[in-house]
Amino acid sequence: MSLLTVGSVAFDALETPFGKTDKIIGGAATYITLSASYFTKANNLVAVVGDDFPQSMIDIFKDHGINTEGLEIRQGEKTFFWSGKYHNDMNSRDTVEVQLNVMGDFNPVIPDAYQNCEYLMLGNTAPAVQRMVIERLTTRPKLIVLDTMNLWIDIANDDLKSLLPLVDVLVLNDEEARMLTGDYALVRAAATIRAMGPKTVIIKKGEHGALLFQDEHIFYAPALPLAEVFDPTGAGDTFAGGFIGYLAKTGDLSFDNMKRAVIYGSAMASFCVEKFGAERMLNLSQDEIYDRVKQFVRLSAFSVEL
Amino acid sequence: MSLLTVGSVAFDALETPFGKTDKIIGGAATYITLSASYFTKANNLVAVVGDDFPQSMIDIFKDHGINTEGLEIRQGEKTFFWSGKYHNDMNSRDTVEVQLNVMGDFNPVIPDAYQNCEYLMLGNTAPAVQRMVIERLTTRPKLIVLDTMNLWIDIANDDLKSLLPLVDVLVLNDEEARMLTGDYALVRAAATIRAMGPKTVIIKKGEHGALLFQDEHIFYAPALPLAEVFDPTGAGDTFAGGFIGYLAKTGDLSFDNMKRAVIYGSAMASFCVEKFGAERMLNLSQDEIYDRVKQFVRLSAFSVEL
Repeated sequence: MSLLTVGSVAFDALETPFGKTDKIIGGAATYITLSASYFTKANNLVAVVGDDFPQSMIDIFKDHGINTEGLEIRQGEKTFFWSGKYHNDMNSRDTVEVQLNVMGDFNPVIPDAYQNCEYLMLGNTAPAVQRMVIERLTTRPKLIVLDTMNLWIDIANDDLKSLLPLVDVLVLNDEEARMLTGDYALVRAAATIRAMGPKTVIIKKGEHGALLFQDEHIFYAPALPLAEVFDPTGAGDTFAGGFIGYLAKTGDLSFDNMKRAVIYGSAMASFCVEKFGAERMLNLSQDEIYDRVKQFVRLSAFSVEL
Repeated sequence: MSLLTVGSVAFDALETPFGKTDKIIGGAATYITLSASYFTKANNLVAVVGDDFPQSMIDIFKDHGINTEGLEIRQGEKTFFWSGKYHNDMNSRDTVEVQLNVMGDFNPVIPDAYQNCEYLMLGNTAPAVQRMVIERLTTRPKLIVLDTMNLWIDIANDDLKSLLPLVDVLVLNDEEARMLTGDYALVRAAATIRAMGPKTVIIKKGEHGALLFQDEHIFYAPALPLAEVFDPTGAGDTFAGGFIGYLAKTGDLSFDNMKRAVIYGSAMASFCVEKFGAERMLNLSQDEIYDRVKQFVRLSAFSVEL
């Protein structure tokens, strides 16, 4: 079933304890759509870049079956740029520089061919932009998943909260869940967020896995313990792309299938961190994904006599 | 099968965001042995207290089927005392005061009736004391589990490292694993620790669950997401008590059964944090434990078509 992803396509410059990069391709929508491409070929992208964005990357998107009709290229303008530096523990980072460039007035245009998409992934952008996307779709998708970040909880809190009733699944990290609700206990924070609108809440905890909340159900997906985390950039977006990609592939929105989708998302994220930027996401095989999901099964399976 | 637990029996004074206590009963061996008492009635305690320790608590131990013949009561001396204050996130704490008292020269005497115990749980004490216990047993137990803490890694590093080849399972938290090995990645830290001696390593991550490492196997047990964590004191010891108690009950040291033991330990720890000190551990029913383990199954079970 068809997926629409809206979000940033960007240049990133990264520094981790393992090295640093010049400008490489990044952005939430890049990670989401590449990750989802391993699950669905009805994979539509809406984003904006400047004329400095390389055609070679657009070709890579196309090679992955990603529809780039909605990728606006603004002549005479520059692509969104973010640079960040990770601390030694890899769990926290500082933003070194942000150049909004074309993202400063991102006005997402939905091509006609994208209308009637059944799955909508709103990657992390300003809540006002995310709202525009929902309002510009002629048919409400079967599932709307929204990602956000601490910045919007801070500077666009009302916009974000007014958007939440329109959303089916909110994906955010533990720190953001605590910030949005003022509650340290994640089980209470999730209940508070669900009362704000989204029926389903996913709280990402980085190396500690992810929690999926829906009704009275809780599912705890582990993260794969990795010997080397090379670069965590994009792991959360890659998770979201695997999650919604798997749902779009299977078309099943039961809680049991959402659990599987969280596992597939976690598996995709575990690849992402193995190399700088999105590099590892460019050439995955279905066998590698299959083997990685099997590792998650072995990691968390146990039986008790009840 | 018979279990021997050696460690501290103490007074604690605790302060958490939810309130504070005067002196209440604490100590690693208290939590371990109470937790294990729900799994085995061949439950032998070696510890030392002063003459200020209440007979009523010794009676409670006995009511739980705990053999207190090895609980030395030193006349004219005082029981070990620790006071601590938790930060708002409950994941970190400051030690406010320590009075070693009788623990300053703890000389663990093993009653004859305790010899030939098959399971030995060395609760957190000085490595030199833990070594004395091993040396004073006439027969090597079937399984030796050792817990330690950052203090000993810091001030008794050589003692600890020379002890590790004698041990089957090392239980420690994530911060301690990193401190002992100098490696941030837990999967590498566990491999390093296993090269130091223990065939099996359990790394506790508090609210993020626990990792069990053995040979090429890794198991990730979740922690139950709780709305209220009232007091984390003793949760790690309660985990260890449930772990070794379950193994002593079942007598099965396979990796599959160790996974179950980690789940039972996690379930016991999830009770411990619900009330101050060891209060919640005094009156658990087998039905409550059964229901809690079922919650762990629901929390982490998923199926994928592989």
